[in-house]
Amino acid sequence: VADVWPREDKGPTQAAILQAMTATPVLLARLEAAVGGDAVLTDPAVLDGYRTDEAGIDAPRPAVAVVARSTADVQAVVRAAVEHRVPVVTRGAGTGLAGGANAREDAIVLLTRGLDRIVDIDEGNLTAEVDAGVITSALNAAVAARGLWYPPDPASIDTCTIGGNIATNAGGMCCLKYGVTGDFVLGLEVVLADGDVLRTGRTTMKGVAGYDLTRLFVGSEGTLGIVTRARLRLLPAPQPPATLVAAFPTVHAAGSAVVAATATGVRPSLLELMDRTTVAAVEEFAGSGLGDLDLGDAGALLLAQSDAGPAQAAYELDRLTAVCQAAGATATTSTTDPVQGEKLLAARRVAYTALQAKGATLLDDVAVPRPRIPELVERTEAIAAQHDLVIGTFGHIGDGNMHPTVVYDAADDAASRRARDAFDAIVETALDLGGTITGEHGVGLVKRSHLPGEIGPVGYRVHRAVKAALDPLDILNPGKAF
Amino acid sequence: VADVWPREDKGPTQAAILQAMTATPVLLARLEAAVGGDAVLTDPAVLDGYRTDEAGIDAPRPAVAVVARSTADVQAVVRAAVEHRVPVVTRGAGTGLAGGANAREDAIVLLTRGLDRIVDIDEGNLTAEVDAGVITSALNAAVAARGLWYPPDPASIDTCTIGGNIATNAGGMCCLKYGVTGDFVLGLEVVLADGDVLRTGRTTMKGVAGYDLTRLFVGSEGTLGIVTRARLRLLPAPQPPATLVAAFPTVHAAGSAVVAATATGVRPSLLELMDRTTVAAVEEFAGSGLGDLDLGDAGALLLAQSDAGPAQAAYELDRLTAVCQAAGATATTSTTDPVQGEKLLAARRVAYTALQAKGATLLDDVAVPRPRIPELVERTEAIAAQHDLVIGTFGHIGDGNMHPTVVYDAADDAASRRARDAFDAIVETALDLGGTITGEHGVGLVKRSHLPGEIGPVGYRVHRAVKAALDPLDILNPGKAF
Repeated sequence: VADVWPREDKGPTQAAILQAMTATPVLLARLEAAVGGDAVLTDPAVLDGYRTDEAGIDAPRPAVAVVARSTADVQAVVRAAVEHRVPVVTRGAGTGLAGGANAREDAIVLLTRGLDRIVDIDEGNLTAEVDAGVITSALNAAVAARGLWYPPDPASIDTCTIGGNIATNAGGMCCLKYGVTGDFVLGLEVVLADGDVLRTGRTTMKGVAGYDLTRLFVGSEGTLGIVTRARLRLLPAPQPPATLVAAFPTVHAAGSAVVAATATGVRPSLLELMDRTTVAAVEEFAGSGLGDLDLGDAGALLLAQSDAGPAQAAYELDRLTAVCQAAGATATTSTTDPVQGEKLLAARRVAYTALQAKGATLLDDVAVPRPRIPELVERTEAIAAQHDLVIGTFGHIGDGNMHPTVVYDAADDAASRRARDAFDAIVETALDLGGTITGEHGVGLVKRSHLPGEIGPVGYRVHRAVKAALDPLDILNPGKAF
Repeated sequence: VADVWPREDKGPTQAAILQAMTATPVLLARLEAAVGGDAVLTDPAVLDGYRTDEAGIDAPRPAVAVVARSTADVQAVVRAAVEHRVPVVTRGAGTGLAGGANAREDAIVLLTRGLDRIVDIDEGNLTAEVDAGVITSALNAAVAARGLWYPPDPASIDTCTIGGNIATNAGGMCCLKYGVTGDFVLGLEVVLADGDVLRTGRTTMKGVAGYDLTRLFVGSEGTLGIVTRARLRLLPAPQPPATLVAAFPTVHAAGSAVVAATATGVRPSLLELMDRTTVAAVEEFAGSGLGDLDLGDAGALLLAQSDAGPAQAAYELDRLTAVCQAAGATATTSTTDPVQGEKLLAARRVAYTALQAKGATLLDDVAVPRPRIPELVERTEAIAAQHDLVIGTFGHIGDGNMHPTVVYDAADDAASRRARDAFDAIVETALDLGGTITGEHGVGLVKRSHLPGEIGPVGYRVHRAVKAALDPLDILNPGKAF
């Protein structure tokens, strides 16, 4: 992993590391007694696999990793960590993109992969109860088999875990109409920083008994408690989507179509944008898969779906097509066939991979008010030019959440520095446009230095007060988020 | 107001009252200097109007009421309260149903009605920024004029305030498909217990920068901070609804129709239930307004709407009608005409009024997993028989949130006691059925004694820790919720 982020996590002090090293034999013995020797991992080669997530920030090898197979295991780990004053870094599948699961020399990495049970699917109540380590697509498949649907669809859906999705309040393409992970979490089982088990939330759609502790833990990146189980809200299976792709000369034209679409009353179930750079990268990588749609020198591609049902979806796409054409689309194509629609979406699904094929990447994640997306893309283009880099921007224009992706040569130190500077400049641009530093990936290490700029001094103080109230010893994922 | 709840809020100690009385002249002078003499209300007759909300729990006259006309006013009130160690009870329209806005002898009642500006409606971003004192229906009208929609629809929509809705995370009939108030709050301006102003959240649909402080304040009943302004999420105007009413011989039959409806994939925009007692009360009060639908001895009435769009809605209601008939509906009627549909809904809208016409009422608000609604209604009927009372149950069966309404003779002390006992028994029944003590009204004073039973000792401890972190002096609405 290239050391693109030298200024981030300072990690523990030498004193803390020394203390942890001294304590390690006792700690290991205690952990082995609590959770079983086979669940305590100390092989350096294995531990190296738990150093970082996918953000591209280097991190040291942790002291130990533990496979938790029950809530009691998690409690035992936390209690041992408290006694030895070592941090616990909880790790799902390690697919995070913000460094939130990165290790420290003195840390216990707590692996949730052994918490892998789908405990219950209640078809009548439209809820599921699942362990934190369940793979998101495994839940999807299990509920789909009962005619139900769990909408959140992060790109890593086939490998990421429900617990990780909750820790980052993960999104995806469905959020525009259906919401993010947090919108589907009714209740949590959480191991607190003192090892006690807290159960939050409820079994019902509505409920206002006490503070919304569920949402406090959602998106808290493992810093307030360790989620071991969740009760999730489900929906009836969606109607097959109809799909529209429209090519525009500029991102401004595409952006004005998105704003105009609102006035039609249509609520697309997907609304994605790819900028000129991304379109070109996709064409180069894989061809666009868009059949006879001539992308030519398209300045932007807009992809939309409606799942409003057989009759309504076609009507809605007709409205959207008209809006796109009025906004200057140079070409449109649409289909009510879901298989054909998925082929049209392939261009968007492969966008990040296509940019990765051009070099090392820093995948950004910002959100701005929807009408300001064209400005964000334009200013990102200026940042790319200024730093002599390729930056492709794509993402969820429907909810204002874009992923400018900085492409650079990792073997070139100067380019790596410029890439990081460009990344930071994009984040600051998002704030300047009234947006947020992170739409769905989280703060982790990547954006920790930007957080105070977004939440302000009073917000920072309240964050600290909440953290101190729940984790006074700073045991849980210290140094992350803020 | 009948003293049906003698055991609730113990209120301040005599020492606190004495201290407050001694401090009052200085406090009043300070408040007058800060917010203007005309905004400081001390007339006993006026203050009596701010003793209670609509829960029917008596409360003493507050020491003073202040009309806040700006965030700075709210800050000044809080800082004065901190200096004099007197509580602040924030009051919107006073339409709450849990005693959450009830006063205390030593309290400043802070009136938000002067915070009445719709600051901004951003059509492109689908957001609105509004002051806490804006009446919910005024916001509805303002956004509807732009072709937009703010879905939350509590029954008191024409008088309640956005701030009050946020304090209780208010619901309504739209929640089933669109969610509760909290699902439409993107960010808040909050005056904290030390008088500082916190801004939470964002302008965008998605965002995971830091803890979800927005949702921590939503539903916190004025105990963590005072919401002065909110940024709300809007939707495009909904499609005109199609409406279905079905009469069933029993609540069990209606309940099985609701569960079976899930399997059709249909997502109704409204799904309401009235039990036999409520149907009879409505017929007695107003006739049902259901035209030629023969209610006869209907054991339950199910009302459903679909707003899936012109073509789709009719299809969806056909599916729902078939499901109802298969579940044993004795009569069904449906219409795609919104005006006719609203006439069909009249029976439901008048339900509470019809029960109120029969005597004093205690309006309960519990939620249980949807498949257990029939059990809830049956056990409520048993509670009514046991306590020799009339209890009509109606509500939002689609999200499991029901309003059993205890009717009693307020002039009869024994009946009043039985009414309260029945109310408590219903709340405990909801917990026993895996539900919650409050779906959308809040805990306030009415259900404070039940909260520990729902959130448990660890939950209670975490609530206390969060409260202490944000309001260490217990200035904000003390004694409410927990």
